[in-house]
Amino acid sequence: MHAYRTHTCAALRAADAGKTVRLSGWVHRKRDHGGLLFVDLRDHYGMTQCVVAAGSPMLATLEEVRPESVITVTGEVVLREPGTVNPKLPTGEIELRVREVVVQSAAEMLPIQVAGEQEFPEDLRLRYRFLDLRRERQHRNIMLRANVIASIRRRMIEQGFTEFQTPILTASSPEGARDFLVPSRLHPGKFYALPQAPQQFKQLCMVAGFDRYFQIAPCFRDEASRADRSPGEFYQLDFEMSFVTQEDVFAAIEPVIAGVFEEFANGRKVFGAPFPRIPYDEAMLVYGSDKPDLRNPLKIADVTEHFAGSGFGLFAKIAAAGGVVRAIPAPGAADKPRGFFDKLNEWARAEGAGGLGYIQFAADGPKGPIAKNLEADRVEAIRAACGLNAGDAVFFAAGKKDEAPKFAGKVRTRLGEELDLIATDEFRFCWIVDFPMYELNEETGQIDFSHNPFSMPQGGLEALNTMNPLDIKAFQYDIVCNGVELSSGAIRNHRPDIMIRAFEIAGYTAQDVEDRFGGMLNAFRYGAPPHGGSAPGIDRIVMLLADEPNIREVILFPLNQQGEDLMMQAPARVPPERLKELHIRLDLPPPKGAPAPKAP
Amino acid sequence: MHAYRTHTCAALRAADAGKTVRLSGWVHRKRDHGGLLFVDLRDHYGMTQCVVAAGSPMLATLEEVRPESVITVTGEVVLREPGTVNPKLPTGEIELRVREVVVQSAAEMLPIQVAGEQEFPEDLRLRYRFLDLRRERQHRNIMLRANVIASIRRRMIEQGFTEFQTPILTASSPEGARDFLVPSRLHPGKFYALPQAPQQFKQLCMVAGFDRYFQIAPCFRDEASRADRSPGEFYQLDFEMSFVTQEDVFAAIEPVIAGVFEEFANGRKVFGAPFPRIPYDEAMLVYGSDKPDLRNPLKIADVTEHFAGSGFGLFAKIAAAGGVVRAIPAPGAADKPRGFFDKLNEWARAEGAGGLGYIQFAADGPKGPIAKNLEADRVEAIRAACGLNAGDAVFFAAGKKDEAPKFAGKVRTRLGEELDLIATDEFRFCWIVDFPMYELNEETGQIDFSHNPFSMPQGGLEALNTMNPLDIKAFQYDIVCNGVELSSGAIRNHRPDIMIRAFEIAGYTAQDVEDRFGGMLNAFRYGAPPHGGSAPGIDRIVMLLADEPNIREVILFPLNQQGEDLMMQAPARVPPERLKELHIRLDLPPPKGAPAPKAP
Repeated sequence: MHAYRTHTCAALRAADAGKTVRLSGWVHRKRDHGGLLFVDLRDHYGMTQCVVAAGSPMLATLEEVRPESVITVTGEVVLREPGTVNPKLPTGEIELRVREVVVQSAAEMLPIQVAGEQEFPEDLRLRYRFLDLRRERQHRNIMLRANVIASIRRRMIEQGFTEFQTPILTASSPEGARDFLVPSRLHPGKFYALPQAPQQFKQLCMVAGFDRYFQIAPCFRDEASRADRSPGEFYQLDFEMSFVTQEDVFAAIEPVIAGVFEEFANGRKVFGAPFPRIPYDEAMLVYGSDKPDLRNPLKIADVTEHFAGSGFGLFAKIAAAGGVVRAIPAPGAADKPRGFFDKLNEWARAEGAGGLGYIQFAADGPKGPIAKNLEADRVEAIRAACGLNAGDAVFFAAGKKDEAPKFAGKVRTRLGEELDLIATDEFRFCWIVDFPMYELNEETGQIDFSHNPFSMPQGGLEALNTMNPLDIKAFQYDIVCNGVELSSGAIRNHRPDIMIRAFEIAGYTAQDVEDRFGGMLNAFRYGAPPHGGSAPGIDRIVMLLADEPNIREVILFPLNQQGEDLMMQAPARVPPERLKELHIRLDLPPPKGAPAPKAP
Repeated sequence: MHAYRTHTCAALRAADAGKTVRLSGWVHRKRDHGGLLFVDLRDHYGMTQCVVAAGSPMLATLEEVRPESVITVTGEVVLREPGTVNPKLPTGEIELRVREVVVQSAAEMLPIQVAGEQEFPEDLRLRYRFLDLRRERQHRNIMLRANVIASIRRRMIEQGFTEFQTPILTASSPEGARDFLVPSRLHPGKFYALPQAPQQFKQLCMVAGFDRYFQIAPCFRDEASRADRSPGEFYQLDFEMSFVTQEDVFAAIEPVIAGVFEEFANGRKVFGAPFPRIPYDEAMLVYGSDKPDLRNPLKIADVTEHFAGSGFGLFAKIAAAGGVVRAIPAPGAADKPRGFFDKLNEWARAEGAGGLGYIQFAADGPKGPIAKNLEADRVEAIRAACGLNAGDAVFFAAGKKDEAPKFAGKVRTRLGEELDLIATDEFRFCWIVDFPMYELNEETGQIDFSHNPFSMPQGGLEALNTMNPLDIKAFQYDIVCNGVELSSGAIRNHRPDIMIRAFEIAGYTAQDVEDRFGGMLNAFRYGAPPHGGSAPGIDRIVMLLADEPNIREVILFPLNQQGEDLMMQAPARVPPERLKELHIRLDLPPPKGAPAPKAP
């Protein structure tokens, strides 16, 4: 018989009754029933109930071991009494009558409990992550993550992609976030950087002639922690393709993303490929966001014209000053009590808006402060523009052209929640396309890149040479799911001449471009294919599927919000001789309250 | 029609004749044949011959573009003339009659050629790696690597393993090599370390109750470069299993390794599972190495007894002093000319041996200097011990007990090569098992761990308490293929009591162990399963399969031997304000020839 197990703790069924078997696992729970001792034995696969008879020589051993000790039990599989069958447990029809016990590893008193639903502070959980991960939800989340990644890999390979490993010890990248640096021992005064993303390497893969690259890529940014961003490392499904248009990229990745979500939806509805394509301008108008949550059925309308020169002076003035008024429908809200409208108005003020005007389309006609002042035909035009009926209401976000649309988006989200309109059991994707290439920097009056300077401008060199830069769109696209941006991607600018011209418009000389991005430019001078790609965030995909709002719940051994590994004690001090070897020394801030150091 | 291609450059066949198609790719070669211009167009998938007729308006464009420019050609597929069919090319039956050409990216004059077999200096190749990778052998090696890794992943998942990502920003590990350090911005004076291997994390995965972990894991060591080791990062198939014996580990990984080698053997013979298990002591005796190349059929024999007290004074003296004499057979070598034996003798001296004695078993009896002095019955006993016949020879490695066996191994390898006995078209694996737990440090007279202090000693606590430490074996094992160590693994010591005792024998106090390995010990105190694993080197597996002696040939973007990325210019200087942010400053060695700095 095997030293540790003949079966896993999830394997035994009624048909095994009568067999002598051996199981190993953790003591999940112990229950004493009139001299009989029941032990729920747990392993990675499941749970089996073990029972020790009164008077058994094994009783003392099992009474002594603490929960979470690891034991090996040998004994006979017996059918449970009909009344004690547990239909929720795959092994619930049987139990193991223990004949022999070996304690493989006795547990001390636990700092956090594994069995049960008790919550523990995050720092304690991370310090004892090896215990925390034994808990059902945590174990399930990490297995989900692993299975999601394996599924993505399989699907990418099926789509003709090949996975390559790009360097982790590399050079500082132009992504713009802060790099982690690694001092070089062999090259005094020089540093490697950890990649913020393998952006340049994947483009170099294309230049090197590999047609379809992907990688479940570790990325590193020395940035502040957020609920959806780890302070140190994160993973993305990095991919890139040659000789493709934007639609080819969509066609390649949509079945992968949709397929993964369908595989792990667990009863939730997935709106599969093709995903709707929403131009950036339309997204900002209709959803008030370039990350629209399409589970929210509300659609914003522009009603500026209906207020221009109208009797509702506040909005008329805004329209006259070049501002906009956006209408957010609130179906069925006409008869909501006054408190509903007041609460939203207060929320709007807390958000920095002047307030939140509205019209109630009651059964007996339009109501509310705006309806009183606005001409009836205008009220009716607004109703029609928003597709509303008696019983519905509409809210208004009015203000400057670059502020009101975004606030309208917030109102849309808030109303969706208040009216319980968001289908929380759905996954809805869209592509946001046609991002503007440039934007006006209000402070400097200069033209800046609005998103990614390395995207190909729509219309190429000719557009750059002939169009108003603010009208030029880029071949750039985001995948959004349920209001969460999964990735940003683009058809890249692979032409040095177009890149230099594109940067010139944003105020850079050709020399600036050579100085900053010479490596890529140089590679593009020896035959570069048109190419494009994207990089959906793995952690975010898993967060959506696991329905976890905190990224640390879907990472095996996460750093805490302060960037510390409490279990392994990282970061840590290192001996001075190690620093000497790396040609650096500490340059610590003065301790708090200490006088500033004098100049030498 | 698609903007770039209707087919890849490997797709067109005779059946496509008559179709109008579009291809995109790199201009591999151009040939001018009496006004006709032939262009071999290459992409990731293959090559297609394109032809431009004399007088075509496209002729000028194609004459002008340099090799490695990226072009899109549109035209008609036509059958080649029977005499010009190229049977070596999948597309060799057709050619594309070019009607239209678009230059997507014009190449400048190339620093290294892509077409052809010309060799270039490694630094130039790495600086222009994106060109180097377009060359056939390099492209093939990197695709092989990618396919090997994908195959390993698939096979590990089939074996019930789950892939997890362990942290890359972590704490210094006790592996013993030099860590790369990453200064922490948020925690002044503290540093992360990049993992030398996820050893502790994979063991913590087991303690956390995940049953079968694996990872294609990036590992980092700040160590000198070697032909088979990168100076910075490398990848290993890291795996670990719970509730297993050594044989369970072998049974899980053998089909993966054998399967991968069979899949990519490309005609070479793979000696599959089960791999022979060779105890360490036997390996040192029979092969003179714990990394035996089993493609070499030679087996070493111990013949010390036959020289002890014999007429061959030199070896008799060695035997009397506690040394050993090992015999390495040289089948068929009896009639080799004198020069053969002299050359080997010279080589042995260059290797630091006194020389290389031998006996030739000629048809008319034993010959050579040793045979002259050694008693005939002893010569005969040696012949019988080595299983030799007339026509064979035997060489001797004699010396100290810890030196002669290893030298015998070198002789075995050298003879295998000289006599052309090594089957270079085979992959032969073995497990080396039963490594000694401890060894005597000759210098200090102390007992040291001989390999991995964290392995479980065979016999457990009882062995530690009762046996001579030098007789204790560990549950530790290496996989060796063709003389290359693919990995080192072990059943781990998961018991704090056994670990503390094991370290005590090697001269450490319990407090030392707590101080240095407290993290792991602590985890083992809350219920740790018996577990074990290993970590075969990915780069070495690919080197063997690609038959490349240099690791940089199987890595996409390798650092050079000085740890530099010549293409991306890493490592590099960073602005002082970045260092300030990280609370470090430079501490550079004085420039050569400069006076030493004065004390402040």
